[in-house]
Amino acid sequence: MKNAFYAQSGGVTSVINSSAYGVISELQARDNSINIFASQNGIVGLLEDKLYDLGKTKKSIELLKDSPAGMFGSCRYKLPALTEKAFYENLFQKLDQKSIKYFFYNGGNDSADTCLKVSQAAKDFGYELYAVAVPKTIDNDLAITDNCPGFGSVAKYIATSAKEASLDIKSMCKTSTKVFILEVMGRHAGWIAASAELANDAKNTYVHKILLPEVSFDESKFLAGVEEDVKNYGYSVVVASEGLKDKNGEIYSASSEKDSFGHSQLGGLAPKIANLVSNNLNLKYHWSVSDYLQRSARHLASKTDLEQAVAVGKRAVEYALSEKSGIMPVIQRVSQKPYRWSIGEGNLKDIANEEKVLPNDYISDCGFRITPKGVDYLSPLIQGEDYPRFDNGVPAYEQLDLHLAD
Amino acid sequence: MKNAFYAQSGGVTSVINSSAYGVISELQARDNSINIFASQNGIVGLLEDKLYDLGKTKKSIELLKDSPAGMFGSCRYKLPALTEKAFYENLFQKLDQKSIKYFFYNGGNDSADTCLKVSQAAKDFGYELYAVAVPKTIDNDLAITDNCPGFGSVAKYIATSAKEASLDIKSMCKTSTKVFILEVMGRHAGWIAASAELANDAKNTYVHKILLPEVSFDESKFLAGVEEDVKNYGYSVVVASEGLKDKNGEIYSASSEKDSFGHSQLGGLAPKIANLVSNNLNLKYHWSVSDYLQRSARHLASKTDLEQAVAVGKRAVEYALSEKSGIMPVIQRVSQKPYRWSIGEGNLKDIANEEKVLPNDYISDCGFRITPKGVDYLSPLIQGEDYPRFDNGVPAYEQLDLHLAD
Repeated sequence: MKNAFYAQSGGVTSVINSSAYGVISELQARDNSINIFASQNGIVGLLEDKLYDLGKTKKSIELLKDSPAGMFGSCRYKLPALTEKAFYENLFQKLDQKSIKYFFYNGGNDSADTCLKVSQAAKDFGYELYAVAVPKTIDNDLAITDNCPGFGSVAKYIATSAKEASLDIKSMCKTSTKVFILEVMGRHAGWIAASAELANDAKNTYVHKILLPEVSFDESKFLAGVEEDVKNYGYSVVVASEGLKDKNGEIYSASSEKDSFGHSQLGGLAPKIANLVSNNLNLKYHWSVSDYLQRSARHLASKTDLEQAVAVGKRAVEYALSEKSGIMPVIQRVSQKPYRWSIGEGNLKDIANEEKVLPNDYISDCGFRITPKGVDYLSPLIQGEDYPRFDNGVPAYEQLDLHLAD
Repeated sequence: MKNAFYAQSGGVTSVINSSAYGVISELQARDNSINIFASQNGIVGLLEDKLYDLGKTKKSIELLKDSPAGMFGSCRYKLPALTEKAFYENLFQKLDQKSIKYFFYNGGNDSADTCLKVSQAAKDFGYELYAVAVPKTIDNDLAITDNCPGFGSVAKYIATSAKEASLDIKSMCKTSTKVFILEVMGRHAGWIAASAELANDAKNTYVHKILLPEVSFDESKFLAGVEEDVKNYGYSVVVASEGLKDKNGEIYSASSEKDSFGHSQLGGLAPKIANLVSNNLNLKYHWSVSDYLQRSARHLASKTDLEQAVAVGKRAVEYALSEKSGIMPVIQRVSQKPYRWSIGEGNLKDIANEEKVLPNDYISDCGFRITPKGVDYLSPLIQGEDYPRFDNGVPAYEQLDLHLAD
């Protein structure tokens, strides 16, 4: 019993495959007699007997570092409570068939929960298994760890895109668009929206309003602020978190308010805010929803993020081979300036199903901007570029040859 | 009388400043006694006495090649008919005050019209002026020229983004999102949407459906196609041109059809198609609207596009200094494989207010894909990368110091 299981779970990122690289390369370096099975579509592949035998893969696993999204497929699947004995009995039979001793689960909060359950169930069943979670989430909302692999690259993408769009609107605002709204991900925590502050610098304000789920949305204050921006700068750039909430704590984009025609509105937060601006301020607007583009943009990944993604994968292997279980490598900030980080150990009990939102002192008094303290936290995470190989004008993103185990 | 006027007009691009660089650097190289005035916000700056005197600029004009959008500001402003004598009298007074002999107008169809009117009016008024248009439009819809500076970079951005998002959905489709819709620009011509075909290669299909303004939208055929994609690939990626039209030739996103709740829909094409898919196929979807992000993404500019943007600027100067007027440098395709291009001369009368849509033989029989002939046309335009300088994790996009003329 010495083989390893690796799976990707939850929403993918542009660097989750770099964590896969970290796990696989470290396992191969430490003991190349370990067979590594990568599950197709997260834990689902295990349950459906769809495991890729990486021993059969001919291409270099270095390719993993260059490709966004989940090379092996991911899933959204919640494990049942530990009291569902039959489920776990079946699961351990599957692991036993492949002589799995090391279990790596690469994901966010829900995945930490999955990994914790598997770790606990293994103890209950007396199955010798070392289950280690590998952190991944663009939401940056995992507890204990200073930041989450996947987030830095989204932050870099949003800061860059907001700056680019801002220059565009600045060019046009004299006779055309005056307000631009960029909707970004983040249902519960505003880390991604907050990263738009990194577009700004000491001399220039490119992003004027940041709408966070942590700050209940005050329409009048927002509209007054946008009007002020247009007066001061000629235009206003708004970056809005999809999880923005109204005064009652309801998701603003889903609230039942009617537009000026008496219709309920469909279609997301950005068009809703655009309508609000148009109806009240009569300003020409444009809006964008970056959705999956932001989290798959490997072409603009943060080098720091990539390095951390690889490092947590490698450290997870070290922990598992030291026969530790129910834990996760976490990133620790050793120093702020210059930025230095190390990796420590987090207990999954403290991580699973917890959620870290933006601290109050990262949010400016007006509620629409990020404080210098918040910028100091965010800035190191987007440093450095690491371009993928391009082929014929587009990123090659060459995929591994994957072969199901017998 | 030997000075030069340069202005940017219409929707900006990630490489229009490279054309500005071409114009300015070539003027400086050929005759550095020429004073160059760059107009603030297109022709509007001339009318409002807001001209930047580039002789006062201290920073290097090389910065122009690195920054997206319009460094001097752009405008949407249509010149009146030539019969409005008072307007043109005023305009030539303004040009005369600055001893302008060379007039460069950098834009698309409307801008070609502006440049043509100024050229014609100069003759009517007996003002010695050599007015040359510099082509620019992400829409790629200018007549005569083989392609338009600005388009190649958007095409590269869309092909890259579609490929990245496709890998994301592929990872998730087993248990989550099965259909992704990316809305792109293009009100009348589908060039930008068509460029999504460049995400596909001989081995892999990343983009399954392309919705073009040139093909009237058949909902049933589209839905059957998406269903087929999900059967064959597990998911479907749709790239849709904002100008998509229904059977009656009406803009599909603006049509008065009701959703399943009986509400009219607001909020753009992508959410409307997402609703169509959801209501009819009951598949989980995500959608994105790239809007200004696509045309300002200098971080992912096409090197070929940048080179052509510079070259048309330089050639415009050559034409003007040879005392030609009412023309535009156009890009000519000298050979397809290997791709070679040169620059020729186009008459603004053949360009102003004309619009080039996708030829029929670039559109596949099913109406949802681009033919190999279309790919052969598009592919050379996105070749090569030219990354901007990054500063503190985001592109620096340093702006020139600009000083208004006295």
